[in-house]
Amino acid sequence: MPTITQLDTDHYLIPLPRALEDSMHGVMTGFEVITTRVTDSDGATGVGYTYTCGENGGAIADILGREMPPRVTGRDPDMIEALWQDLWWAFHYGGRGGPTVLALSAFDMALWDLKAKRAGLPLYRLLGGFDAAVPVYAGGIDIDLSPQQLVDQTHENFAKGHRAIKMKVGRERLSEDVAKMAALRDAFGPDMPLMADANMKFTVDGAIRAARAFRNFDLTWFEEPIPPDHPQGHARIATEGGIPIASGENLRSLWDFRTVIEGGVTFPEPDVTNCGGITPFMKIAHLAEAFHLPVTSHGAHDVTVHLLAACPNRSFMEAHGFGLEDYIETPLNIREGKAIAPETPGHGIVFDRDKLQRLRR
Amino acid sequence: MPTITQLDTDHYLIPLPRALEDSMHGVMTGFEVITTRVTDSDGATGVGYTYTCGENGGAIADILGREMPPRVTGRDPDMIEALWQDLWWAFHYGGRGGPTVLALSAFDMALWDLKAKRAGLPLYRLLGGFDAAVPVYAGGIDIDLSPQQLVDQTHENFAKGHRAIKMKVGRERLSEDVAKMAALRDAFGPDMPLMADANMKFTVDGAIRAARAFRNFDLTWFEEPIPPDHPQGHARIATEGGIPIASGENLRSLWDFRTVIEGGVTFPEPDVTNCGGITPFMKIAHLAEAFHLPVTSHGAHDVTVHLLAACPNRSFMEAHGFGLEDYIETPLNIREGKAIAPETPGHGIVFDRDKLQRLRR
Repeated sequence: MPTITQLDTDHYLIPLPRALEDSMHGVMTGFEVITTRVTDSDGATGVGYTYTCGENGGAIADILGREMPPRVTGRDPDMIEALWQDLWWAFHYGGRGGPTVLALSAFDMALWDLKAKRAGLPLYRLLGGFDAAVPVYAGGIDIDLSPQQLVDQTHENFAKGHRAIKMKVGRERLSEDVAKMAALRDAFGPDMPLMADANMKFTVDGAIRAARAFRNFDLTWFEEPIPPDHPQGHARIATEGGIPIASGENLRSLWDFRTVIEGGVTFPEPDVTNCGGITPFMKIAHLAEAFHLPVTSHGAHDVTVHLLAACPNRSFMEAHGFGLEDYIETPLNIREGKAIAPETPGHGIVFDRDKLQRLRR
Repeated sequence: MPTITQLDTDHYLIPLPRALEDSMHGVMTGFEVITTRVTDSDGATGVGYTYTCGENGGAIADILGREMPPRVTGRDPDMIEALWQDLWWAFHYGGRGGPTVLALSAFDMALWDLKAKRAGLPLYRLLGGFDAAVPVYAGGIDIDLSPQQLVDQTHENFAKGHRAIKMKVGRERLSEDVAKMAALRDAFGPDMPLMADANMKFTVDGAIRAARAFRNFDLTWFEEPIPPDHPQGHARIATEGGIPIASGENLRSLWDFRTVIEGGVTFPEPDVTNCGGITPFMKIAHLAEAFHLPVTSHGAHDVTVHLLAACPNRSFMEAHGFGLEDYIETPLNIREGKAIAPETPGHGIVFDRDKLQRLRR
């Protein structure tokens, strides 16, 4: 039986080529990436990571670097459910959300990577295997773009293999959002899957008004119209606004997802780097299946492609462009609107540590 | 107009004289205390703190020490709602719970202390003022005690001025909990206010069974019978078990409280050091009032006495004995079952920094 012998954590700040903006997170100039590598007594390793919009990465690194090692060293890395439960409860009082869960997500990801590598299986096959080709969309952080700039960006995304697009909404005037949506439909036709993301900008009544303004554009979903703290509000928006609702990037547990699903969200979208890791991500996907719902995703597409490739109810996966791909040896393979899970053992992500070295915080 | 010029944060580990234990947090050998002191451009200061059961304090200190100062320096310390909103959203992605909210709680407390000191008012008067004498109970972490040891501990608490007691439940056998409850009722009669705290140990069905076993002992409330992630479960326990339910120490926002109140909790018990600070604590108290409910509390009695002294719907305040009183110059004044809010400006807590120095982490 192997045991965990080491956990090595690193904290980086990746500057963005241009500052990005959405309706509620303000201007983002860089993303933090916190990586953690677990080593077992046979010398095998697994790698996990999480990221932030630029804040709280130090807290995550502190939990991974200070709190985790004494609790996991000497434990059997294959007993992931046992480790996860022990850590959830050990960190519950100062945890149950926030940096604690982001740290747990990275550690859990590293354990699954290790397990899959030891088994000689790509992660998606280890997790059950459904279809290596996962429908994908490009998720832009583009609220500040003009209609023409958004059309240009979409052409660029098509050149990269994308066939589905998510745009940000929530500008000061609703008519500006509508003009951008109209420009995309004019340029790319009625059938391109199109989503809109408000990043929690609206009240319920405001979201209903926006949804009605968007209704002629046949959106696949309307994402995070309101903060996740008002789960019951989603049902009114979906029913009175007439567009399905997606939410999940700001939920931090399996139970948060059950609550929003009961509250009317029909496109649950966990982020493997902040929902608690691969262990809860798969449970959330299965919870969605039990509710006859698809499962989509947020962020971390390089790992998530494996998870959705193991889910029969997978919907579109988000491909997020915050520049991490420049620091990974093999970027995600996207062809004709599908992302293809790699066949290398584990999740297949190898960070370019030399290039990351100068971005250390 | 004063501005914030400095934020100084310190992180201590306070060992417990004897290890404590409850049903879910395991054995606790020490508590972390993280203090933060805000200084304004007139040289006035305010102090806030938060604490943990021994984990994640480093993450809290990192947020207070690394993330907060650049965001709050130069801001007007009287504009607490504006600061709170900005920080909630700045830290939302890696926040909305966990160490981030504990850090925000400490900072918010420091701002209110500063404001009250500048105004020359004790905090309870600044916040509105209702009654400086707040009903109090002794909350023991005593699941491992025998019936006789619990009776002995209760005599000690009576000698300190207490007239109401909360005991831990959730031992391996339900009959052991019942035997301890019976011993207390035998020794102190039928009228002593008595609460039981399960620290999230049970399932809903298990909690109903326990509540029925406790029903003859006329409990004031049954606390945290289940984890807070199952808010709707509380209603069944209250209705079928026949005892009012308290919950709150593991809730991290105003909205979490609305959710559990709608789920059947009738004794909401915020902790000012982890619900986001004094600002949300008072809103939670007012939310309870709107629902025709009392408000109780968890932890940090030295500050909380001011908050409940400003609430017409205050119920019993918890006095928690984890040893912080040994590091505070003037411990809480408890007389005949009431805690008396001090008349010094601010919250009145002065930490003994010399004594704390050797406990620095």
